[in-house]
Amino acid sequence: MSLTQTPQRSTSKGQRTKETILEKAVDLASVEGLEGLTVGRLAKEMHMSKSGLFGHFGSKEDLQLATISKAREIFIERVIQPARNGAEPGLLRLWHLCDLWLQYMEDEVFAGGCFYIAASAEFDGRPGAVRDTVANDMKVWLDYLRIQIEKAQMAKQISADVDPQQLAYEINAFYMGANWKLQLYHDLTAANRSRIAILNRLKAAATPTAPSLPANDNFKI
Amino acid sequence: MSLTQTPQRSTSKGQRTKETILEKAVDLASVEGLEGLTVGRLAKEMHMSKSGLFGHFGSKEDLQLATISKAREIFIERVIQPARNGAEPGLLRLWHLCDLWLQYMEDEVFAGGCFYIAASAEFDGRPGAVRDTVANDMKVWLDYLRIQIEKAQMAKQISADVDPQQLAYEINAFYMGANWKLQLYHDLTAANRSRIAILNRLKAAATPTAPSLPANDNFKI
Repeated sequence: MSLTQTPQRSTSKGQRTKETILEKAVDLASVEGLEGLTVGRLAKEMHMSKSGLFGHFGSKEDLQLATISKAREIFIERVIQPARNGAEPGLLRLWHLCDLWLQYMEDEVFAGGCFYIAASAEFDGRPGAVRDTVANDMKVWLDYLRIQIEKAQMAKQISADVDPQQLAYEINAFYMGANWKLQLYHDLTAANRSRIAILNRLKAAATPTAPSLPANDNFKI
Repeated sequence: MSLTQTPQRSTSKGQRTKETILEKAVDLASVEGLEGLTVGRLAKEMHMSKSGLFGHFGSKEDLQLATISKAREIFIERVIQPARNGAEPGLLRLWHLCDLWLQYMEDEVFAGGCFYIAASAEFDGRPGAVRDTVANDMKVWLDYLRIQIEKAQMAKQISADVDPQQLAYEINAFYMGANWKLQLYHDLTAANRSRIAILNRLKAAATPTAPSLPANDNFKI
């Protein structure tokens, strides 16, 4: 997938119905898992007939893969695009990206928390197209984060001695820790704990001439 | 639960059989989820009759709760006890604890990775005794980690200005990031990435008179 292209919105009525079904599918899957996502279950939620829904998806796996596509599209719209619009490549865009990522978790865009974390926990032990798509999407996103760190290094805003892969790994871990705490305990401070952790890491990595990052005490815990 | 008492091993034959069943149950649940853990499924794995198994567990929820108890016991034996035996309270015991925790993940003590992460992802949206037990066990462990940080502060090995709760949160996040990467990609460097992240945090937090921590390059990535 590409994280920088605007997803194409189709305007035909059939396509719009399919989009509405997939939005519900993403939501349901984030709570009950992709495995629990059946045409019957979705038809009930959408007050549609099973045969009406069958026309849109050939098999359960097709439905699961289309649901992952939809989740990816929502992620691009909610996180990647506003970060690109909000700041030039460099330290501030990197921070903006982390902040929006946590924001999208806090806003509970998906009822059951991060769709991809839920899907990866569910499918990591089950080989197949679903596992491969989830793994690939998450890898593309991690690579995108690493590239943003490298761009900040090229702009001399992050020290050259920082390992971009290690930093991207740590930012991702902070995101996972927040999702866990928010989902299991409904602890609304979780995302801010991760914001503070990320800000501390970015401040330690920044060069003396880098633009200023927000003060930690903007984020209440 | 207490993390510092040695679990009692019962020696009666019935109790030993139950223990063997529960070891298999923990393993199965780490791969297939606690929800997929039925008496029928377990009986098949154990080559026992369903009625033989029913005698040990009253209901599916009883079986799930007994499985969590078993996972807790294994965690105490594999992580808490060796760390207590290996170092005095302070920075080195804290590091030892993190290292053993990651080791137990790497050793794939449970076939599907960390039992508690899998169980919390599965049950965070389902109120009830299973969710409450998982949430409580993980809270007790996070509190234990925080107390180890406070003990290292009392021993003047970690700076007094470090927030123990934030540091415990970050260490936990590094563990979650490693489990995700190991499970989804079978990436054997994942635990070492987290060891390096934790060592960097502990070295930044240590006082000048604290005992030395291992060099980062002991851990290959």
